[in-house]
Amino acid sequence: MNDSPVIVLGAGLSGSLMALYLAQRGMKVEIYERRQDMREMEMSAGKSINLALSVRGLYALKEVGMEDEILSICIPMKGRRVHPVSGETNFQSYSSDNKKAINSVSRGDLNKRLMNRAEKAGVVINFNQRCTGVDVESGEVFMKSELSDETYSVQGQTILVCDGANSGFRSSLLYRPRFDFSQTFLSHGYKELTMPPTISGKHKMEVNALHIWPRSHYMLIALPNLDGSYTCTLFLPYEGKPGFENLSTPEEVNAFFKKDFPDALELMPELADDFFSNPTGHLVTIRCKPWVFEDKYAIIGDAVHAMVPFYGQGMNAAFEDCTEINRLVGIHGNNWAKVFAEYEKNRLAHGNAIADLALDNFIEMRDKVGDKAWVFKKSLEHLLEKEFPESYVSRYELISFSRVPYAEAQQTGEINAGILEELASGLSSPESFDRNLAKSLILQKLGNRVAGWKSAGLLTL
Amino acid sequence: MNDSPVIVLGAGLSGSLMALYLAQRGMKVEIYERRQDMREMEMSAGKSINLALSVRGLYALKEVGMEDEILSICIPMKGRRVHPVSGETNFQSYSSDNKKAINSVSRGDLNKRLMNRAEKAGVVINFNQRCTGVDVESGEVFMKSELSDETYSVQGQTILVCDGANSGFRSSLLYRPRFDFSQTFLSHGYKELTMPPTISGKHKMEVNALHIWPRSHYMLIALPNLDGSYTCTLFLPYEGKPGFENLSTPEEVNAFFKKDFPDALELMPELADDFFSNPTGHLVTIRCKPWVFEDKYAIIGDAVHAMVPFYGQGMNAAFEDCTEINRLVGIHGNNWAKVFAEYEKNRLAHGNAIADLALDNFIEMRDKVGDKAWVFKKSLEHLLEKEFPESYVSRYELISFSRVPYAEAQQTGEINAGILEELASGLSSPESFDRNLAKSLILQKLGNRVAGWKSAGLLTL
Repeated sequence: MNDSPVIVLGAGLSGSLMALYLAQRGMKVEIYERRQDMREMEMSAGKSINLALSVRGLYALKEVGMEDEILSICIPMKGRRVHPVSGETNFQSYSSDNKKAINSVSRGDLNKRLMNRAEKAGVVINFNQRCTGVDVESGEVFMKSELSDETYSVQGQTILVCDGANSGFRSSLLYRPRFDFSQTFLSHGYKELTMPPTISGKHKMEVNALHIWPRSHYMLIALPNLDGSYTCTLFLPYEGKPGFENLSTPEEVNAFFKKDFPDALELMPELADDFFSNPTGHLVTIRCKPWVFEDKYAIIGDAVHAMVPFYGQGMNAAFEDCTEINRLVGIHGNNWAKVFAEYEKNRLAHGNAIADLALDNFIEMRDKVGDKAWVFKKSLEHLLEKEFPESYVSRYELISFSRVPYAEAQQTGEINAGILEELASGLSSPESFDRNLAKSLILQKLGNRVAGWKSAGLLTL
Repeated sequence: MNDSPVIVLGAGLSGSLMALYLAQRGMKVEIYERRQDMREMEMSAGKSINLALSVRGLYALKEVGMEDEILSICIPMKGRRVHPVSGETNFQSYSSDNKKAINSVSRGDLNKRLMNRAEKAGVVINFNQRCTGVDVESGEVFMKSELSDETYSVQGQTILVCDGANSGFRSSLLYRPRFDFSQTFLSHGYKELTMPPTISGKHKMEVNALHIWPRSHYMLIALPNLDGSYTCTLFLPYEGKPGFENLSTPEEVNAFFKKDFPDALELMPELADDFFSNPTGHLVTIRCKPWVFEDKYAIIGDAVHAMVPFYGQGMNAAFEDCTEINRLVGIHGNNWAKVFAEYEKNRLAHGNAIADLALDNFIEMRDKVGDKAWVFKKSLEHLLEKEFPESYVSRYELISFSRVPYAEAQQTGEINAGILEELASGLSSPESFDRNLAKSLILQKLGNRVAGWKSAGLLTL
């Protein structure tokens, strides 16, 4: 069996990376991808044009030797530029040193480069081939050519399933006994819009920031692109006012932006055209269990833990799945039963944790970043990070700037919140916090976990 | 469109009943059923042979004129006969007057009689016809004959989907945006076993009881059949000891029963044969949203709220769905958009509530019924019901002996638990409870909800 290829389903971000990882180990890898080769077509607009690449994703790219190449097509964002309805904007740094950044990158460009590298490493990508099901017990995968309608089956030494939130592979598991599954949609949808560059091709707003217009139960965000434009995303309830169902004419859309996002509107001359030509996207959280079956398959990324985009971690989490599988292959070779059992054991709780955090972070982005008490605590938190760098790290840093397992970051974030609550009580300015109380609270509640992560190499890249 | 038939998917319990309800209103109804006609075949053993029919189910049967016919094939069970490992059994009545009963009935017999009546009322049942999908927007249903493999489509004035927990119809909704869905399996499976009658065809144990052998995290139960036998069901974890995965020889099964269910073992001469010839069943909870789409379809029963069997309400809840749709057709005729919108509004929360309660009740059956403090409170509760019949009703009575909406019964059960907790504190015997305290607690916490249900006709049949 070792001569037969590893089958990878999906040539998206995680499928291409997973295949590249394995090909670099000398394995024979074949990808089957439902869509046509995106390198030969115009990208379809309106669906997650850019993404935020952070430490976990960069770590994977470094392992496959692509970190520098990809950073060269990224725009670093060091914090959030918050736009109120009127008055001055304010900047909220992601890190206490104001140096760390998450990176805006084009999904299409990143994907194409991953495919190129995978092919260079010997991976064969079969495009226009749809997976229609699987015989779980034998590992036989049923395929259909989208070009000829021909049906056939393939069998490799194992299957790595990377076919995304709408996984066709996963659908054939739904009738298996004891396959737990849930898909839960947000009552908000999203619409991607464009803020074009100036005539001379420059950015119209601050470049190195993620721009947010928080409006309590909805929001607009904007991420910078290399060509001087921004991709803006409006997150809005389907129902109610304002809501997608009640924005049906260019006049209504313009009036809504004029009232709620006046500074953005001025920079978006084609707002109404974009609004009605781009689809309204949906936001889903997916969970399932198990993720693997014996030595037959492992499912990776969105197909098992699709999440809402509010922590910018969907791709980073999927890349970290690939990193873990590659690490386990380093230990167990192609003893896939061992690799997969440990993969699930080591990753399932963390996939669920980041999906939870992504739901929570919607509240933070659309509401709290505009709230004075929250901003006060955030300032206090940055002071704690500076004063106690060996023992206090914010949840945001743990998620975006470390490789600390997500569930541990989640639990630490809850402890952090308790410490901040106690320190902030009755305080007139963040700077006047009680150093001794802070020291004892941190020691007592957080212990030496930060030192542990540092010595394990999880906290610095 | 009014001349075209109403399409019902599934000729199981709820499909047959739903079709009968509508045919009795003069509507043209066609059922499509995946399986062959069960009236022409041997029933397959080992999967939910009998069910507990209670007030909600009986109410529906009364409405279609079948209550007496079905009661004639039922065995009433007035309470639980609890079997400890050693020592005397004890009886726990379901109602304070020891008169009310839930009814053990054969699933197959009930289903056949419903089909017979439906056909008599003009319903056409097409057997061996599998639903493979639906075009939601048009209401066109795609079918495949299991006999000829021929594919075709049908279109009626609307679709009532009653195709059960593994609904084929529902699977085609999973890729619709904003269709929330979850399936969650218990870590316990079940095995159906038979306790045969005496040589003279008599029952070997007390007839009018549901027998339980509670063993903390697992249990055995037995329901009486008309032929003198009992259908026993063992609920056991898959993993661990004892667990299905560790019972692989007749010797192991017999040793397990000898240790844990010695009195039952004596009455089950064919235990090991049954155990290895019957499949291990799985226990799933299903939730989804929405249940309906415009005037195109409504989904009913297990297909939208499959639940674990521990409250004996799966069929009763499904029948109550049918009752509600029939009631709404009485008001709105075949204005299906109105019927369906109100059906979902009136039933979705209650389907989810009884699914929750069914999960809770597993703990009660396998564990609490053997617990002294719990039995003490149950006795106290029956005293309260006798003393305050106009204002206090137990949750069990509300679920099994009333038509009070499930979510209201659930919420009332939580209030009841608080009242019992307070009254039982420091009490030496149930009879010595503080009447004045009871009266004031009941008035204050429960108000006059019981009187309200009585005047609405929900509390007495």
